[in-house]
Amino acid sequence: MRTAVSRRDARGDPVGDEVTEDLPERRAAVAELAGELRTLADLLTRTEVSAEVLRDSTRRLREIAPALRERLRTPAEPASVDDLMGGVRMFNPVIGAGNPIAPPMRVEMGADGAEGWCTLGQAYEGPPMWGHGGVSAMLIDQLLGHAAAASGHPGVTTDLSVRYRRPVPLDVPLRIWGRVTEVQGRRISVTGGITTAAEPDVPLVVAEGRFARLRPDQAGRMFGRLASPAATNPDVAHD
Amino acid sequence: MRTAVSRRDARGDPVGDEVTEDLPERRAAVAELAGELRTLADLLTRTEVSAEVLRDSTRRLREIAPALRERLRTPAEPASVDDLMGGVRMFNPVIGAGNPIAPPMRVEMGADGAEGWCTLGQAYEGPPMWGHGGVSAMLIDQLLGHAAAASGHPGVTTDLSVRYRRPVPLDVPLRIWGRVTEVQGRRISVTGGITTAAEPDVPLVVAEGRFARLRPDQAGRMFGRLASPAATNPDVAHD
Repeated sequence: MRTAVSRRDARGDPVGDEVTEDLPERRAAVAELAGELRTLADLLTRTEVSAEVLRDSTRRLREIAPALRERLRTPAEPASVDDLMGGVRMFNPVIGAGNPIAPPMRVEMGADGAEGWCTLGQAYEGPPMWGHGGVSAMLIDQLLGHAAAASGHPGVTTDLSVRYRRPVPLDVPLRIWGRVTEVQGRRISVTGGITTAAEPDVPLVVAEGRFARLRPDQAGRMFGRLASPAATNPDVAHD
Repeated sequence: MRTAVSRRDARGDPVGDEVTEDLPERRAAVAELAGELRTLADLLTRTEVSAEVLRDSTRRLREIAPALRERLRTPAEPASVDDLMGGVRMFNPVIGAGNPIAPPMRVEMGADGAEGWCTLGQAYEGPPMWGHGGVSAMLIDQLLGHAAAASGHPGVTTDLSVRYRRPVPLDVPLRIWGRVTEVQGRRISVTGGITTAAEPDVPLVVAEGRFARLRPDQAGRMFGRLASPAATNPDVAHD
């Protein structure tokens, strides 16, 4: 598969000719760069090196930014590595392999729900040695949206309730699950939670979410760049 | 203020002599490095440079990691730049200036609540051009915890309910607020939400949280490294 990449300057204005390159290659390069930034973020939260070493690292990082700034898309332009209609969102902050903020969570869709897997490192610490409660809520919000979509009822979150039963461990493979429990008109109810992968019967966090299917006019406002996202593409319709 | 920094190898074993250096200087260096990683994460989500430029950036990033790996703390050791009893958590994933995942949110404590401010960039995008709903939940979880602590009732989140009323814009200063509504024994109820800083009367997200004060034995298990955290330090007691 090949894609057209527009050359644009820092203000988003097109410059020069379009170039084409291999889309899988570019996606792999994006994921590798994100992976390295993720590694450095993890190391920064664990390192005890001197201020001098830290400052030297900062200087070297600063030298990398200008090359990346040479062609920036505007927020209204989809990323060329994404395929919104096909469900590819490389920069999603929970599942995006191209987003250093994302653990990232890997998602598998089932008939009436979805399951996700990830491991939270030191950068996701809340109480000393445990995962941050807000990070748990973030993982669940994303996964419940996938569950709604998997059952054929994609939508946007309207309500999310999270109960914290036990602390979520760091550096341990986690399992996040969600299952649609009710569909009433435009409203979809989903239940789910977080366990460790090793002990799927011991709930750490439990949650319920409600989603609303978008009407075409709402979809038009929220996903203005797309033809009919909620109807055709589960991933796009979820926040 | 000066601090002792233990030299440790990658497995956490002490090596060589202890060195001391200026704590504010080291904190500044940590925040600067995190800020640069945050800038690069933001650029990665916006850049349209070629795979070759991306790969070259990755190669240069890889050269930075070994120096940071030279002295790593173990998860059980507090970071030397932190002051858990004094409420300094540089690597918190929501408010930590030293954590590239954090926007970071700036928090001000009041008599019966707290307010936070941050701006979400492209890396926090959920639906195209809007903030991720899970990120909103993460900001709120943290801020409601500060609100509970500000009122003199610090604890850990037991329940969090979030209602999404309007999409949260990117690249716009946001205001996150929380106020304690009820204290019953060990249970603290907090209400709050997200607005833009410019329109504090237009709710984008509203939320309710319940927190539980930790009993000393629970605090001992969760904050085992500390003497009596929940009683003396609001920030430490919240996830």
